Amino acid sequence: MGRKAQYKQTTFEIISIGNELLIGKVVNTNASWLAKRITEIGGFIRRIVDVRDDLSEISSAVREALKRGTKWIITSGGLGPTFDDMTLNGVAKAIKKPLRLNRQAYQMLVEKYKEMFERGILKSLDITPERRKMAELPAGAVPLRNRVGTAPGVLIKFGRQRIACLPGVPAELMDIFENELLPTIQKSIKRVHMIERTLIARDVVESALAPVIKEVMSRHPLVYIKSHPKGRESGVSIIELHLTAVAPSPEKIEEDMGQAVQELKEKIAALGGTTEQ
Amino acid sequence: MGRKAQYKQTTFEIISIGNELLIGKVVNTNASWLAKRITEIGGFIRRIVDVRDDLSEISSAVREALKRGTKWIITSGGLGPTFDDMTLNGVAKAIKKPLRLNRQAYQMLVEKYKEMFERGILKSLDITPERRKMAELPAGAVPLRNRVGTAPGVLIKFGRQRIACLPGVPAELMDIFENELLPTIQKSIKRVHMIERTLIARDVVESALAPVIKEVMSRHPLVYIKSHPKGRESGVSIIELHLTAVAPSPEKIEEDMGQAVQELKEKIAALGGTTEQ
Repeated sequence: MGRKAQYKQTTFEIISIGNELLIGKVVNTNASWLAKRITEIGGFIRRIVDVRDDLSEISSAVREALKRGTKWIITSGGLGPTFDDMTLNGVAKAIKKPLRLNRQAYQMLVEKYKEMFERGILKSLDITPERRKMAELPAGAVPLRNRVGTAPGVLIKFGRQRIACLPGVPAELMDIFENELLPTIQKSIKRVHMIERTLIARDVVESALAPVIKEVMSRHPLVYIKSHPKGRESGVSIIELHLTAVAPSPEKIEEDMGQAVQELKEKIAALGGTTEQ
Repeated sequence: MGRKAQYKQTTFEIISIGNELLIGKVVNTNASWLAKRITEIGGFIRRIVDVRDDLSEISSAVREALKRGTKWIITSGGLGPTFDDMTLNGVAKAIKKPLRLNRQAYQMLVEKYKEMFERGILKSLDITPERRKMAELPAGAVPLRNRVGTAPGVLIKFGRQRIACLPGVPAELMDIFENELLPTIQKSIKRVHMIERTLIARDVVESALAPVIKEVMSRHPLVYIKSHPKGRESGVSIIELHLTAVAPSPEKIEEDMGQAVQELKEKIAALGGTTEQ
C-alpha cells in the first residue's frame, strides 16, 4: 500500500544535481524544503533523485521522470557558469531540444552584471562564454527571474508535463520558487486540503502499536498514520505518530481525523501506554 | 563530463524509503551520512533515490539500480513492524525471491524481545505477526545484527551485486553499517586513495573563476574542482572551491593536488581576488 496520490493529486518529482550530494558533503535540504512547500499546496511528491554533475545521469533522470508521467519535474542545481553546471544540457538532451540563446534570459544577465559592476563586485562587464552559457536555454523555455543570484531559473513545457530548473544555492532556489514558479504551479495543480496531527505515544513499543494503527486506518481510510520510533527515555519507548489526511474539501477529513486521534488515544491507553498531542 | 567512477571505483546507490522524506517532514541525513562514509572508504555513489512506502515504488527503484549494474545497493527505512514497512517485500519482488522466515533473524528478535521484557519495556513476549514479519527475509538473505533497535538489517547476494537493507532510525542504521556491513563492503571494494582540499576565494565572482577552474583541471586531470557560491559579505563575493582527487596510490595525487591548489591561488590573485585554505 502506502498512500497513493489520492483524488488524483498532481504528481511531482524532484531531481537534485550535484556531486556534493553524492559524496555526503552537503545534506539535501533543498529537496526537503521543496517537498514541504509542494505538499503544503496539495502536490504529491512521488520521488526525489540525487545525481552527479554528469550529462548522461542528468538526462536519464529527467527522461525517467517524464516516462513515469509525472506532471511537474523540478530540478535543483547545475545552472551556474562552471564547466560542470550542465543541467540545461541534460534537460535539453532528455527532451531532444537544442540549446539556444534566450533573449529574455540574456537581458536578465546583462542587467545583473551591470548592477554588480556598478557596485564594484564585478571587475569587467564582458559577457564571457561562461556568462552567456547561463542564458542558453532549451528551445521554447521561459527564464524565471533570480532576484538573489545570477543564473535565471528555467520553465519548460513538454506536452502536458512541466520541467522547472532552479539553482542549487538555497536562497536563490527559494526566491525563484516562491516568486516566479509558485503562481504557475498553483494554476496547474488540483486543489486539495491536507491536515496533519502529531501524537506522541510513550511506554508502548512499535510492534504493539502496529495492529492498532492498521485497525484505526481501516476505519478511517482518508487518514494515513505513520509511526516514527524516537528511541527510549529511561527505559520507556517513545513513538511519534504522524497522521495526515488529504481530501478535496476540509469538512469530512476534520471529523475523520478527530475520530482517528481519539481512537488511537483510547487504544494506546488500553495497551498501558500514554499519549500527548 | 562530471567525475566518472575513476579507476573502476566500486559503484553504490542509496535508496531511502519513507513518506516522511517525500513530504519534507524529515531531511535525508541518513543518505548523506552513508554517502560520506562510503566515499571515505573509496566507493563511488552514483545515485540517491527517495521513494514512498509503496511496494511498487520500492521494487522499481531496486530493479532500476540493479539494471544499471550498480555493485552495492543500500536501502534505508521500512524494516519495522508496521503495515507500511515493506522494504523487504519490495526487494523480494525486485529480485523475484519469496519471503521466508529466517531462523537466525528470528532468533535475534526473540533475544531482543526477551531482553526488553526482562527490562520491563515489553508487556508481552508473544511473537505477533507484526514481530515475526521482521524476520521474514528474501530467500537466501543474511540478517545483520541490530544492537540499538529491534529490526535486523539484511544482506542479499544477487549474482555479483549486493543489496543491503538498513533501518531508518539513524542510530540503528549507523550501528549496523559500522559493525556488520562495513567489513563485508571493505572486502568487496576496490581500494583507492582520495584526498580533499578546500579553498575559499573572495572578491572574484564564479563566472570569472569558471575558466580558471577549467584550465587548472585540464592541467591536472586527477583533480576535480567544484565551486560553491557562498553568497556575499559586505558586497564581496565568496566562493568555496572543493578539490578532490582519487587514485590507486597516494603519491601521485598528493603532488598533483598541491600543484592545483598553488595554481588556483596564483590565478585568483591575478584576477584581483584573495584566497584562504
